[in-house]
Amino acid sequence: MTKSIGSNKTLFIKDDKLLPSVSIDCIILGFNNGELQVLLNKFIGFDSWMLPGGFVFIEESVNDAAIRILRSRTNIESCYLKQFYTFGETNRVNITENEALLKLNEANNNNSHWLLKRFISIGYYALVNYDQVVINCRDIEEITWIALDKVPTLYADHNNIIKKGIQTLKSQISYLPVGLDLLPEKFIMSELRTIYETILQKKIDRRNFQRKMLSSGLVVKLEDTSKKWGIKDTALFSFDKEKYMDAFENGISLF
Amino acid sequence: MTKSIGSNKTLFIKDDKLLPSVSIDCIILGFNNGELQVLLNKFIGFDSWMLPGGFVFIEESVNDAAIRILRSRTNIESCYLKQFYTFGETNRVNITENEALLKLNEANNNNSHWLLKRFISIGYYALVNYDQVVINCRDIEEITWIALDKVPTLYADHNNIIKKGIQTLKSQISYLPVGLDLLPEKFIMSELRTIYETILQKKIDRRNFQRKMLSSGLVVKLEDTSKKWGIKDTALFSFDKEKYMDAFENGISLF
Repeated sequence: MTKSIGSNKTLFIKDDKLLPSVSIDCIILGFNNGELQVLLNKFIGFDSWMLPGGFVFIEESVNDAAIRILRSRTNIESCYLKQFYTFGETNRVNITENEALLKLNEANNNNSHWLLKRFISIGYYALVNYDQVVINCRDIEEITWIALDKVPTLYADHNNIIKKGIQTLKSQISYLPVGLDLLPEKFIMSELRTIYETILQKKIDRRNFQRKMLSSGLVVKLEDTSKKWGIKDTALFSFDKEKYMDAFENGISLF
Repeated sequence: MTKSIGSNKTLFIKDDKLLPSVSIDCIILGFNNGELQVLLNKFIGFDSWMLPGGFVFIEESVNDAAIRILRSRTNIESCYLKQFYTFGETNRVNITENEALLKLNEANNNNSHWLLKRFISIGYYALVNYDQVVINCRDIEEITWIALDKVPTLYADHNNIIKKGIQTLKSQISYLPVGLDLLPEKFIMSELRTIYETILQKKIDRRNFQRKMLSSGLVVKLEDTSKKWGIKDTALFSFDKEKYMDAFENGISLF
């Protein structure tokens, strides 16, 4: 885990400025170190890591709140951000866990605090270019990227939120392309394949994958090669953005 | 429009039993009279029709609330019900419109009523078997089925909710089958084609459609025929439920 420690003292904002009962949680996915990673944060002194999340101001749309939360953690200007499900089970938040969270800050220590009431959470996922992320962290918390298959037990129902988000991506991957938002301009085929393998949760034949990607026209082979991944020159590829966006609009069957 | 008038006097339940800021709206779709229809209701004395909707009890999950709302209007025991999007624009509800709604009932006529505050709405769509629906209506309201292409201007952002729901169905129809929940056990091919045409919002070639449906194995031709649709005997079809459910789990490319 790479951790970042930040510099801001506020723990919770006043609840009279917030829409009651509604929170937002973001699965922020980036491709780094040959694997799909998710951004997590944790209050210092609190046991559980959680998804970056927050609440909705009374004068703010739900989608604007999701953009604000994403930007406040990553400083990212543009990326693929999508609302995928609203989590509304009565027991999704453990109130004892939230009491412990409140005890981190004496000022918030009262029995009628809104964190001790039930709230639903609107789940978003964001596909970001890892290299463009500049992590922003308050000094009361830690932030880390972690591989999707190494995510520990998280706060509240956040493991379930990640599971449902990945399921959503998985159900779409057979007809919508993925990768443009996650990879740099030039990439090697195994990077793209890893993204597909992680979302599909299965191994994909290396040659078949390359053949399908090239014959679909979504991906083109470049003249350039790179030595970045070892001694040998490795072939570089790029997305045909026009074809990619067309496939994204109208669907494409790859698998 | 076929209207039903009901027999129950309560207009709004007390807000201290409800989760603040959160409502639910259901697009209930049925196939009747050769067309895809949506169920709408309207308070007597109020101008606008609306989607059947309601609020979430503090001790109730969001999905359970959607099931309760669907059952309370249709008496239906089982159907395909799916959460598809949460609508959270700040201006999605017109407060003046809600003031007029409150004036229908003097008891609710106060300035701090929760209907005068902002709330988000979780959208669900339900695909129901029209013949199994027994409409339940309170005497303060009317309920009607109306063809999807004849929906008038509705309350709040409900036209937008329908639009987004149909878009969701449209984006899925190229890889997920549709029709099992909407049609009776035996149907004629033009009924199934009409459902696809309505969701895809375009005409589909009659022969190609039948050929694709039969070759996919989703639909089988029955020995029976029927004179219900005219003088001539019309071929009857049925879904192969096992193939249908498999296609629903793993996706199928039809168009």
